[in-house]
Amino acid sequence: MKIIDVNVLKFHAVSEVVRDSEFHVHPGPRHDTVEKVLVIKCDDGTEGIAFGPMDERVILSTVKEILIGEDPFFRERIWRRLVQLQRLRRNLTEDTLCAVDVAIWDICGKKLNMPVSKILGQYRETVPAYASIMVGDDIPGGLDTPSSYAAFASKLVKQGYKAIKLHTWMPPIVPEPSVKMDLEAARKVREEVGEDITLLMDPYHFYSREEALELADGLHSLGFLWMEEPLDEHSMENYIWLQKNTKLHICGPETIEGKMYSRADWIRHNAADIGRAGVIYSGGITSVMKTVHLYEANGMSLELHGNHIASLHILGAMGIDGKFYERGMLHPLLDYETPKPWFTKIHDPLLSDGTVPVPTESGVGYSPNWDYINDNLL
Amino acid sequence: MKIIDVNVLKFHAVSEVVRDSEFHVHPGPRHDTVEKVLVIKCDDGTEGIAFGPMDERVILSTVKEILIGEDPFFRERIWRRLVQLQRLRRNLTEDTLCAVDVAIWDICGKKLNMPVSKILGQYRETVPAYASIMVGDDIPGGLDTPSSYAAFASKLVKQGYKAIKLHTWMPPIVPEPSVKMDLEAARKVREEVGEDITLLMDPYHFYSREEALELADGLHSLGFLWMEEPLDEHSMENYIWLQKNTKLHICGPETIEGKMYSRADWIRHNAADIGRAGVIYSGGITSVMKTVHLYEANGMSLELHGNHIASLHILGAMGIDGKFYERGMLHPLLDYETPKPWFTKIHDPLLSDGTVPVPTESGVGYSPNWDYINDNLL
Repeated sequence: MKIIDVNVLKFHAVSEVVRDSEFHVHPGPRHDTVEKVLVIKCDDGTEGIAFGPMDERVILSTVKEILIGEDPFFRERIWRRLVQLQRLRRNLTEDTLCAVDVAIWDICGKKLNMPVSKILGQYRETVPAYASIMVGDDIPGGLDTPSSYAAFASKLVKQGYKAIKLHTWMPPIVPEPSVKMDLEAARKVREEVGEDITLLMDPYHFYSREEALELADGLHSLGFLWMEEPLDEHSMENYIWLQKNTKLHICGPETIEGKMYSRADWIRHNAADIGRAGVIYSGGITSVMKTVHLYEANGMSLELHGNHIASLHILGAMGIDGKFYERGMLHPLLDYETPKPWFTKIHDPLLSDGTVPVPTESGVGYSPNWDYINDNLL
Repeated sequence: MKIIDVNVLKFHAVSEVVRDSEFHVHPGPRHDTVEKVLVIKCDDGTEGIAFGPMDERVILSTVKEILIGEDPFFRERIWRRLVQLQRLRRNLTEDTLCAVDVAIWDICGKKLNMPVSKILGQYRETVPAYASIMVGDDIPGGLDTPSSYAAFASKLVKQGYKAIKLHTWMPPIVPEPSVKMDLEAARKVREEVGEDITLLMDPYHFYSREEALELADGLHSLGFLWMEEPLDEHSMENYIWLQKNTKLHICGPETIEGKMYSRADWIRHNAADIGRAGVIYSGGITSVMKTVHLYEANGMSLELHGNHIASLHILGAMGIDGKFYERGMLHPLLDYETPKPWFTKIHDPLLSDGTVPVPTESGVGYSPNWDYINDNLL
């Protein structure tokens, strides 16, 4: 079995989500946008696909050259070649590596007529989800005040969620992020949902040590389970300091480079109580499974970042916590339950008990609407 | 797909290998012995098998009860259940866990019509082997003197091996193991094979710190690549001390309990330059793959212990060193190249370039001679 073609289809779409100058997402006016799907074809007709962010230029040049003629089941050989290439081919970014890795896993699963989680060695069939609320904004009826978070949290609990994560206010929405305002949102939400709902926070990412510690201690007193990334993750020392000084569990690192390699350093230095990795920032399923095993060997939990369909397969194959699938981002003014027109269904339906099923389709389990995609090709 | 039966077949065999009072193997008179094969059957007719040491009592009671009705592709769920059970079910030893895990991987591979290394995500198709010479003895023409090792090493190099490991003299063969005699064997072998052959040593396992250091420094001056287990591995502090004080790479731990968990501690404390694990002492393919990913994340090599067929699949899927497959144990008076009568071929044929191919058969790739096994059932 050999890979014979690699292509990236770009197609026209309409979005109601806009990115601010810090690249955070918010509801916005309907506007045209471009979506991409990577398609890797094999000589026996098997096709693997991956949606999501990717750099099609590096895929269609360097990556394609490496993949053509390769057996897709030599995943480790492909992964290592691409990862070593990342050293100098700087635009072979983690999200691009993720797309390639996910499409290759999709080929393997389709060829074997089996979902990826079973190939990995399955552990569970459903995973508890937390509602991941978007970053704060200034939209009336949106996430403009601490009380707005509380009102939205109340709705989310009624939907079945047993856990909720708050992203709070950041530039450019507020020029000066405020620990006081974050804690006010946390307090209002805790009062609204009661003690039995797990609460998490992902605040502004560039607080000072003092601000991060104040926020951490405040969240601990409100019974929050963890906080993510209140400090630039490039300073591990800052996290060692913070984790030493607060009883709140810090969950990280999420966005720093280095996949499982950098996590090994964080573990060695006890920089965060709970590990974190995600397919988009850590280069796909292969890298994240290595990271899972790293945390497992060190007796620690690993929480997965992001709502990628591949996260569900990894969580399905994890015998350690990962307690939660991150479902969202969610916003009072946005509909998360209707499939995008280029899919025939949503991939992470919320069950009434607050869990999401691990996909059972062969491969990764995307449900592309090829009619829509082909009608809207660019 | 569900597991419907678990059985252990015991059959009569003849062996020319005997174990001494320390459980090391040597050539000996032909004698009757008992071999075992675990057979796990699924409702669709797929059968997974595993040969090797195992405790059939715990398999036929506790393990069988857990496996019946399970989907064999829920490997992580099965593995975790058995591993947690090991805490109190003390005779669910690592070799028994290994047999169960290997048989389950064999089912998965046979069902998918694919060798285990490809399911894991293959990296390479052949692996360099080292000749693993048995522990020293007092048999004329055997391994009775340093010169005997040199003569045997010369033959091994002619067979194609590029690397050789010496197990030296231990009780009860010699009452007092001797660093001087170990180094004399090392020196004779180095003189015989020249500088281009990689040399390794696995000496007596209960030397003192001072003896271990003297041996390590001596081997370093003879250009040995690594030494294994010169001290009881239960004292990690001893290894931290030794590794700090010698330039020779120590490869370990091999026999201590704790799978990837204990290795994580050794890594954290730099107790050995090169990691070590094997399917028999670390509970099978699933545990060792977790260990592979642990060492990989920490930027280290991991050398696999033992000549189990499953080692070849793991080495085939490892993008990091594992430089070598351990082939043997070998002895001047024993034939390693003829299959045992309960197999139709040897599973680790040595190619002329000193490598061994990763098995390409579906599953683990055992070649049972069922006629022999059924004719000799106990």
